[in-house]
Formats: sequence, C-alpha cells, structure tokens
Amino acid sequence: MSVYTPVSEGELAAWLANYSVGTPVACEPIKAGIENTNYFVTTSQGRYVLTLFERLPAEELPFYLNLMAHLARHGIPCPAPIADLQDRYLQRLNGKPAALVTRLPGRSLERPSERDCAELGALLGRMHLAGRSYPEYLENPRGPKWWRFAAKEVMPFLDSPQQELLSKELQFQSEQRFPDLPRGPVHADLFRDNTLFDDGRISGVIDFYFAGVDCLLYDIAVCANDWCLEEGGAALDAGRARALLGGCQSVRPFAPLERSAWSAMLRAAALRFWLSRLYDYHLPRPGMLVHAHDPEHFRRILDERVRAKAPWLT
Amino acid sequence: MSVYTPVSEGELAAWLANYSVGTPVACEPIKAGIENTNYFVTTSQGRYVLTLFERLPAEELPFYLNLMAHLARHGIPCPAPIADLQDRYLQRLNGKPAALVTRLPGRSLERPSERDCAELGALLGRMHLAGRSYPEYLENPRGPKWWRFAAKEVMPFLDSPQQELLSKELQFQSEQRFPDLPRGPVHADLFRDNTLFDDGRISGVIDFYFAGVDCLLYDIAVCANDWCLEEGGAALDAGRARALLGGCQSVRPFAPLERSAWSAMLRAAALRFWLSRLYDYHLPRPGMLVHAHDPEHFRRILDERVRAKAPWLT
Repeated sequence: MSVYTPVSEGELAAWLANYSVGTPVACEPIKAGIENTNYFVTTSQGRYVLTLFERLPAEELPFYLNLMAHLARHGIPCPAPIADLQDRYLQRLNGKPAALVTRLPGRSLERPSERDCAELGALLGRMHLAGRSYPEYLENPRGPKWWRFAAKEVMPFLDSPQQELLSKELQFQSEQRFPDLPRGPVHADLFRDNTLFDDGRISGVIDFYFAGVDCLLYDIAVCANDWCLEEGGAALDAGRARALLGGCQSVRPFAPLERSAWSAMLRAAALRFWLSRLYDYHLPRPGMLVHAHDPEHFRRILDERVRAKAPWLT
Repeated sequence: MSVYTPVSEGELAAWLANYSVGTPVACEPIKAGIENTNYFVTTSQGRYVLTLFERLPAEELPFYLNLMAHLARHGIPCPAPIADLQDRYLQRLNGKPAALVTRLPGRSLERPSERDCAELGALLGRMHLAGRSYPEYLENPRGPKWWRFAAKEVMPFLDSPQQELLSKELQFQSEQRFPDLPRGPVHADLFRDNTLFDDGRISGVIDFYFAGVDCLLYDIAVCANDWCLEEGGAALDAGRARALLGGCQSVRPFAPLERSAWSAMLRAAALRFWLSRLYDYHLPRPGMLVHAHDPEHFRRILDERVRAKAPWLT
C-alpha cells in the first residue's frame, strides 16, 4: 500500500479547519497509486480525496491543480480542487505539499466494450476542447527528453533484442516531427483504472499528475494501447480502436495530419510506458512501496505497433 | 409559469456546442422563480440549469456568477457556473444574457426541524467564511437605499396603521449603525425553497441573484424569519432559532456586537421582504407571469419583531 506519510485523525481535523468543507467523518488510506499518498476523506459536507505529494516537483503542482480546476469548471468530470480559506488549492500537511479534491463516483472497467471506448473518445474530445483555453504550460514530463534519459539508464539491464528494439524506436521517433498537430494539455495516463464509469457513462477521469502539453493525438494513443487491446494480446482490436477514434471525431474532427501521425503516435505511447516500467522495475526508488508493473507487457505492445498497421477510422 | 424567453431544442443544441458538456438529452422549463427564465437541461454528461437573465443589470451578473464559482470551489454546495469554450461564464442566448450552472440534487423542506436549522446555520457559517476571500463587491441590492425608494412607491397603497409601521421602522433602522459587524458576500434570500436537502444534509443552496455584500448577521436574520417561525404564526420558535444560531456559531463564533445587533437585524430582514412584496403586489411589472406573494405575511413578522424580544443563543 502506498501511504508514505501517515495522517492522524487529529492532524486531519486541524488541517480541515482551513477549509469550508465541514467536519471530518471518515478517513481511509487509498492503496492504489505509487507516486503520492492518498486518502479518501468524508466530511459532513461530502466526499473528497486528500493527496500528499511525495515526489512531484513543487513548482509543477499548480499546473496540475489549476488544470483540474479549469477542466472541472468546463463540465469535465475530473476531480475539482477545493480552495482553502486563503483561496489556495495547494496547502501543506505533515511536511508535504497537499491538496483536497472532490471524490468522483463510479468504478473503472476491466473489459471496456466498443460503446465504452466511444464514450471515452467523446470525453477525450471534450477534454481537449476545454483544455484549449487553459493558459498554463508544462511540457509533457514523460516526453522525448525523458525517453532519452530513461533509455540510457535502463539500457544496461536489457538483452540484446530489447536493446535493439529500444535503440531503433528512439531513432525512429527522433525522425518524426509533427509541429503542426493540434496540441494542448493532455492527461497522458488515461488508462482504464483512471476512468470511472457509472451507469454506462464516464463519471470521472482521475489522476492528472502525468499531464502536460503535448499532441492531443498522443493522449488518444495512450488510451488505445490500454483500452483497445485484443483479449490477452498486444494487437489493437480494430472495433474498439475505431470506436475510440469515432468518439473523439464526433466532438473534435481530426485534422488530416493526425491520420498520418497515428501509427507513430501509438509507437511513442508504447515506448513511453515500456520505458517507465523498465525504469521502475530496474531502478526502483528507495522506499517505493508498490511492486513495479511488468515492463514486458509494453515491450510486446511496442513490438506489435512497429510491425502492424494501425486501424484508423475507416 | 415563468418562461419569458422560449428556447427551442435546436437553439439549445446549437448553443451547447459552445460548451464541453456533451449533447442535450432533455430540456424542461422551471416554473418557480419570477426574475429569470430557467430550464433544467440534461446532457450526455450531466444535469444543469440554464438561466436567461430577464431583468438583472448585465454589469451585475459577473458578481453573482463569480461568487457562485468561488463558493463552489470552496466546497459550498451551490450551483457551479460552467465555463464555455472561450472560458466565459456569461453567454448570450436568444438575445438575453445566459449562463449554464450545475443542477444540485435534493428537495426543499416545508417544515424544518431544529436539526435542519442547525445544519443550515453551519452551512451559513461555512459560506460566510468561504466568502471572505471573494474579491468582488456589489452592495446588497435590497439594502437601505432600496428600502427608501420602495417605501416611497408603496406608501400610497397602505392604510394608516401600515403607513405608521413602515415610517417608524424606516426611522428606527436609519438610527442603527453597525459599521463594525463582520461583513462579506451574503446570499440574502436563503428561504426554505432555496435550500435543498438530501438524506438529512444540505445538498444545495441555490438562487444567488439577490446576493450582495452586507452584514453576515443579516443573512442569518433572513433565514430566521423564514425557517424558524412558530407554526402558522409570525413569532420566532426559540428552539429552532437557537439551533440556527448555534449552527452558525459552531463554524464562525459570533462577535459580541452581533448579539446586540440581532434584534435590529431581524427587523431589517422583515422590512426588506415586506417592502419587496408590497412593491411586487401593488406595482407589478408589465408581463410579470407569477402572482406576487401576499405582503401581509411579512407585515405580521415585522410587527412581531418590533414587539417581541428575539431569542439569542442562551
């Protein structure tokens, strides 16, 4: 479980006195997540998530919190940060930067249907349109610069076919230039477990702490590589991939350039998660409480994306 | 019913394309309310209220909308305005200023208990604390300046005991000066029908279009005159009045000055609603679609407040 920083009942009650959310009723540690300490907090007013930031650079936190606030007030069902009595989203608790956000209803899906993928696509489209007016800038923290750093660190742990796949993909990606693709703030980590469904509709998109400004299409590619896999495999299920793209298109029509960039973008999204999983697996941070995901899953996906033609809308 | 400006399905769908709230599913006119045109709007994302402002001065609308946004992001369960794709809360629709806000769950109570009054008091306390950091200013639009204007207009319609009550009360109030009472943005119209309960807790405070900056105690007095009346009478029920005050006090301890101002504040709150009901009754606006409330109810309340000692906390 990932509670790096314990918070006692008394500490929570004193801290909540800085807010207008009523008095605490319950507080329960959240076991998922590897980056931050999270608690479900219930007060006399409502249900919230308390996050203590363990690792993210403090100067980047306003980008994430203000982005969530921006999207929430545009009607996107994402956690809305709660401002304290001094009108700040970011506080401190037990020596850590901390924030309180609304807790959203619903549950994540393990096996999304085509309909669910279309729903996700439409939500991505709406989120991308709403994000257009967000004025702050943070480069995608897991973008090409980070790939090169992480690749150098993990290379010694790989066997030679893996080294070759990684080197060739970095080379391929370095030759891709998409300066004219639509860009904006993207979630960049919208896996199934970060999406809550309630009664067939998306009731929450959560965990914005890998967000940054990048190609909007990259966000869709990250989703496709998690939501649209063939059962037990690494290949894309054409039906669900088309449903995802169709959902996006219904809200934000694609630019012609996006179609031609789709294949490279799916490879970039696979590369990013292969690299981060390799990194966490071979170079775990001291005190890391959660076992790293198996990197092999995303190696297979990358390998498959390099070999196979990616389905597009028609 | 108060739909002054009809909105067709096609007009609504085209207008909602300026937002990130999905596609319209249903639209239903709201019959209550006399100031604005309101619709319940359901989209593929959620439930909203669409308001077309019929009468409020356009330059005052940002005060109300930004106040609701401010309180909502502090955790107060009030309607949260939805920003459009150009990041504006205020739009236009069919020639009227218009805004989309979240629709809150719950129902208003006809016969609140002491527990409900305590709940309301705590909510007022939290709302007043959260309002402290709101930077915009609008004088209470139904304050002393407006009383004098309205009194002059309605005086000719009153019989002589009513004229005497009104004149004496205006005189009394003009002698009250409370420059040191805690002040801030107040709802100023938080009657039972503007408060939604869900499962014993307040799930919504709505209709902020009489809000303004005034004494916080005035807000509490407005509530006491509606929530804490003896069954069928005009006197305050001491139990419920104390529960209301106790709820406030549990969140924002009263200043000693507030105790001494309580009686005058209850009279001011009674005067304000007697006057507005007299005004709407004798001088209805052309095209006004809803019958005015009976002014007599608040004459009796004012009369009672002048005569009886008001219950305070102990």
